[in-house]
Amino acid sequence: MKPNTQQLNDLTIQVRRDILRMVHAVNSGHPGGSLGCTEFLVALYQNIMDRKEGFDMDGMGEDIFFLSNGHISPVFYSVLARSGYFPVAELATFRLINSRLQGHPTTHDGLPGVRIASGSLGQGLSVAIGAAQAKKLNGDNHIVYTLHGDGELQEGQNWEAIMYASAKKVDNLVATIDLNGKQIDGTTDEVLAMGSIKAKFEAFDWDVLEIEKGNDLEAIIAGMNDAKSRTGKGKPVCVLLHTEMGNGVDFMMFSHAWHGKAPNDTQLEIALGQNYNVGGNLDYSPLTPNGGTPVESHKIEKNSIVTTNKIPHLVIPPSGVRGLNTGSKDTRSGFGAGMTELGQKNENVVALCADLIGSLKFDDFKKNHPERFFQIGIAEANMIGIAAGLTIGGKIPFTGTFANFSTGRVYDQIRQSVAYSEKNVKICASHAGLTLGEDGATHQILEDIGLMKMLPGMTVINTCDYNQTKAATLAIADHHGPVYLRFGRPVVPNFMPADQPFEIGKAIVLTEGSDVTIVATGHLVWEALIAAEALEAQGISAEVINIHTIKPLDEEAILQSLAKTKCIVTAEEHNILGGLGESISRVLALNSPLPQEFVAVNDSFGESGTPEQLMDKYKLNNQAIVAAVERVMKRK
Amino acid sequence: MKPNTQQLNDLTIQVRRDILRMVHAVNSGHPGGSLGCTEFLVALYQNIMDRKEGFDMDGMGEDIFFLSNGHISPVFYSVLARSGYFPVAELATFRLINSRLQGHPTTHDGLPGVRIASGSLGQGLSVAIGAAQAKKLNGDNHIVYTLHGDGELQEGQNWEAIMYASAKKVDNLVATIDLNGKQIDGTTDEVLAMGSIKAKFEAFDWDVLEIEKGNDLEAIIAGMNDAKSRTGKGKPVCVLLHTEMGNGVDFMMFSHAWHGKAPNDTQLEIALGQNYNVGGNLDYSPLTPNGGTPVESHKIEKNSIVTTNKIPHLVIPPSGVRGLNTGSKDTRSGFGAGMTELGQKNENVVALCADLIGSLKFDDFKKNHPERFFQIGIAEANMIGIAAGLTIGGKIPFTGTFANFSTGRVYDQIRQSVAYSEKNVKICASHAGLTLGEDGATHQILEDIGLMKMLPGMTVINTCDYNQTKAATLAIADHHGPVYLRFGRPVVPNFMPADQPFEIGKAIVLTEGSDVTIVATGHLVWEALIAAEALEAQGISAEVINIHTIKPLDEEAILQSLAKTKCIVTAEEHNILGGLGESISRVLALNSPLPQEFVAVNDSFGESGTPEQLMDKYKLNNQAIVAAVERVMKRK
Repeated sequence: MKPNTQQLNDLTIQVRRDILRMVHAVNSGHPGGSLGCTEFLVALYQNIMDRKEGFDMDGMGEDIFFLSNGHISPVFYSVLARSGYFPVAELATFRLINSRLQGHPTTHDGLPGVRIASGSLGQGLSVAIGAAQAKKLNGDNHIVYTLHGDGELQEGQNWEAIMYASAKKVDNLVATIDLNGKQIDGTTDEVLAMGSIKAKFEAFDWDVLEIEKGNDLEAIIAGMNDAKSRTGKGKPVCVLLHTEMGNGVDFMMFSHAWHGKAPNDTQLEIALGQNYNVGGNLDYSPLTPNGGTPVESHKIEKNSIVTTNKIPHLVIPPSGVRGLNTGSKDTRSGFGAGMTELGQKNENVVALCADLIGSLKFDDFKKNHPERFFQIGIAEANMIGIAAGLTIGGKIPFTGTFANFSTGRVYDQIRQSVAYSEKNVKICASHAGLTLGEDGATHQILEDIGLMKMLPGMTVINTCDYNQTKAATLAIADHHGPVYLRFGRPVVPNFMPADQPFEIGKAIVLTEGSDVTIVATGHLVWEALIAAEALEAQGISAEVINIHTIKPLDEEAILQSLAKTKCIVTAEEHNILGGLGESISRVLALNSPLPQEFVAVNDSFGESGTPEQLMDKYKLNNQAIVAAVERVMKRK
Repeated sequence: MKPNTQQLNDLTIQVRRDILRMVHAVNSGHPGGSLGCTEFLVALYQNIMDRKEGFDMDGMGEDIFFLSNGHISPVFYSVLARSGYFPVAELATFRLINSRLQGHPTTHDGLPGVRIASGSLGQGLSVAIGAAQAKKLNGDNHIVYTLHGDGELQEGQNWEAIMYASAKKVDNLVATIDLNGKQIDGTTDEVLAMGSIKAKFEAFDWDVLEIEKGNDLEAIIAGMNDAKSRTGKGKPVCVLLHTEMGNGVDFMMFSHAWHGKAPNDTQLEIALGQNYNVGGNLDYSPLTPNGGTPVESHKIEKNSIVTTNKIPHLVIPPSGVRGLNTGSKDTRSGFGAGMTELGQKNENVVALCADLIGSLKFDDFKKNHPERFFQIGIAEANMIGIAAGLTIGGKIPFTGTFANFSTGRVYDQIRQSVAYSEKNVKICASHAGLTLGEDGATHQILEDIGLMKMLPGMTVINTCDYNQTKAATLAIADHHGPVYLRFGRPVVPNFMPADQPFEIGKAIVLTEGSDVTIVATGHLVWEALIAAEALEAQGISAEVINIHTIKPLDEEAILQSLAKTKCIVTAEEHNILGGLGESISRVLALNSPLPQEFVAVNDSFGESGTPEQLMDKYKLNNQAIVAAVERVMKRK
């Protein structure tokens, strides 16, 4: 049964008291925006949303909410706690070390009620769109609600999402903009005058309604019911909620000064005194245990990496290494083949692409599963957010674009919405490295391994041929957690056994040797094999390791080999700085300081040229590996 | 004298022939969009723009042009060559290795006529806005023109820029959208229906006009003259140019198939046959030397790093290391003080901020130099682009926001518009690392050193206290080239001599020692000194090096110290992966394999808490350094 008006009023006052106490206790946090949105969140959770009793991350069969302007976490936490998601007493841990109530909301610490991390602005709408599209795929007739700051609309990712939502008729979405007209440095007009927000949303083909009295419970309920009634009609719905920052505390209102500032002791007393409704029935409980009805914290399942430890060495035929090549193919086609197979095998797998279907070899998947294929357009940040949102609803999203646009373009979106939020997103990147060729340096990222390896919890894979790329594509669907899968454009020898299972995190010793260890990844693995053959002719016995997984790194395999060879060459199509080579340098420095030489790009941008010319000019081929081995052998 | 209609027609045909020959020769590149924009670029360069004879990067005293959709480089290169910027014969090097005519236009190789790299879409408008604002600052009454693809408008950064340009009345800007209705995967409507572009620009308060016949020279000239006449009236001007992709070659028109596909030999002959105007006077010259009037390639001045090599060791007072502390301050205030001084000293210095004036300590600079202060709003990508554009016009832009939003949020913008374009932009980042404190992990970037060090040509600096931050702020203004300057929020001891000059790239040996080398950066330098004192009491002699510059790394100083101590501890407020520690591991592995231990965050996200609690929990303090020294000493 929904609470009556008196109960909602009482709860609003209670939430205000919570907000004030929370920010006061830690002398930090954001009271202004929180107070301004108190009525809205109370009405949303207590009257508008159709919510389930318990909490799960998927949120299937219920309305769900995303807070994009994560800094107003105090009001979010209070409303969640007062709605039974976790004990009210836990509000007293706000912003303290080891708390689940982080400064900005996060799923990382398992707080019930939170489905995505927010804080870095402008990412929430994309995530909500993904969740809304997952609902449609699941036949779940519920609504996705969001809240955004008005200043937040200055972030371009919002406009990618706003454009997409109307283009794709995401009409089970109600996005509310908190129009308080203020941001950190002053009024929105002083900082960056945005003109008419209404005209902008309408020009982007949204159905827009305004709630003029955004701090009036009845007006909010009427407006949000109106918004609800407009869903399902082919357009996303935008609510412009006119609020007063700091509402309910006279000295905080009509100013942006309390955006991120806590009251002192005296100010707290005055503010609490202004929020004590003697007509009410609540006890205005302080932040101590009060017998709320917390639901269990969600757990994010992580599967450990299972390896068979039984992958045999390659058997080099009498004709030599080149005899292993069963026919040259591009690794991206291995990805495409993997996607085709996954499409048939796993109905939760969905694919997202940013205007590069052919380049990513998504054609078959799109043809066979049009309902599970999402064409995002040239809007990579939005793509990452939508992918994160699709996991909320149980999907396993595979995003695909060129490697630069998969990583550098969207680093912060991956960081917050995927890695920190621990979402089961597979970021699949073609055209990595110099071998992209003629398009030149803007498209040839040589830093993506480094970018992705620095993200906690991210698995980073760089496959060497068609067979291994296909196997990896299949394997990562069964691995719960964020994955970066890197592959390439050119046709290269296909030499790994077609039936070899892909074991994440397990290095593959391709050939045994005793004089030097060559650890190679991606396109350099084949070159390492050719180099080893040339070295053998010189009487140098090289052990070649295919290190398809750069994170987690199979340190044991590397150290085991080094115990024998006492020196190492690393080979990667990447900047010498930050990539595989440096990861291995760290392992050496920590465990077994030994000479290492690098085959990598020497801290420069690439350029236009054919893949072969570039690999030659930038010294990323078998000759370069042989030269590096010769250097490192002298240093033993 | 402007060419007449016949001459323009002839030139248009010649440019089409160039485009076809260029993409045919390398069997790659983008003919469709190039052919569609041929009339526009011919008219712009030959009739509309007021251009100087020569070429310089600043483009002062003339109209300038930016190509945002860089993939239509063939038409750009041809028009530039035919306008005398470089020899026509050089068109024959398009997309070949070692060419200045990269697949996407770049300044990196010194091609006259190009002022910024493009290729990664959506960045050009921001850059153009910066250049337009520089013109206003310089009292230069000329116009900045741009060209963008329609599909490109799906990138959110455009909408940041579109919002900003009208808010800040950038009315010396004419942005043209190539409305050909096609992108890689199909029509724009199939990929991501954008509705009315006109309504959107108008809702964002631009003055919009349409050129319906975008492949008709007279219509273009009339329309662009109309656009020109609308400049200077308080609004940026948008031209919607309706073109036909592949125009002039019948089999390339009315399809998106020739977006990125070259004609074969037969197709080339047919296409050239359709572009041979017997009534004309031109010779339709092939791409061989034809006596054009090239201007000299521009040179980007780089100053080498000059060091005095005379910085003395710290003199520890009898009271101990703590006696060095002249009063604790935050490093960001050192930045603010530096900016205040720079504002007075160097009139080319401008500051840009993304709604965080107080946090960055920009208040004084803004107050004293309002005309040189740019409030960008919460739109970091736009900020980086505008900064890059401001260098075109001779400004030295200092951007300021939190470290995450300075790097991870805008990696690709820094990569293309700043690092690859070699722009003199100073990216200044406060609130780096865990010591940001209570805001939590979304704001605590621990990967920024790694991100920035992987960019070729980027200087990466992390200062340790107020004095050093102020000195570094002053020093980087005199250093030509992109710089990342990282500092922090909390109050920490101020101990470096106030009068010490800041020498980029020159490690400072703070204390001499013989048992172990401690290389520390940022907030960890003070902790290293305290640790060294504690170690001394245990009879361990530590050499503490303040490595304020992480790139270029002073390898010589480190190796010199290691020759004595034979073991090393690195200390940084950063992920153990990808940062200073790994850079040093690489130096060791390449030069002198020796034991190293790391004081760094062990590949996890941060969390809310006080700076002290976090540095303690994540083992980033003097105790952790002592423990690391004890570990590494055992491994000697």
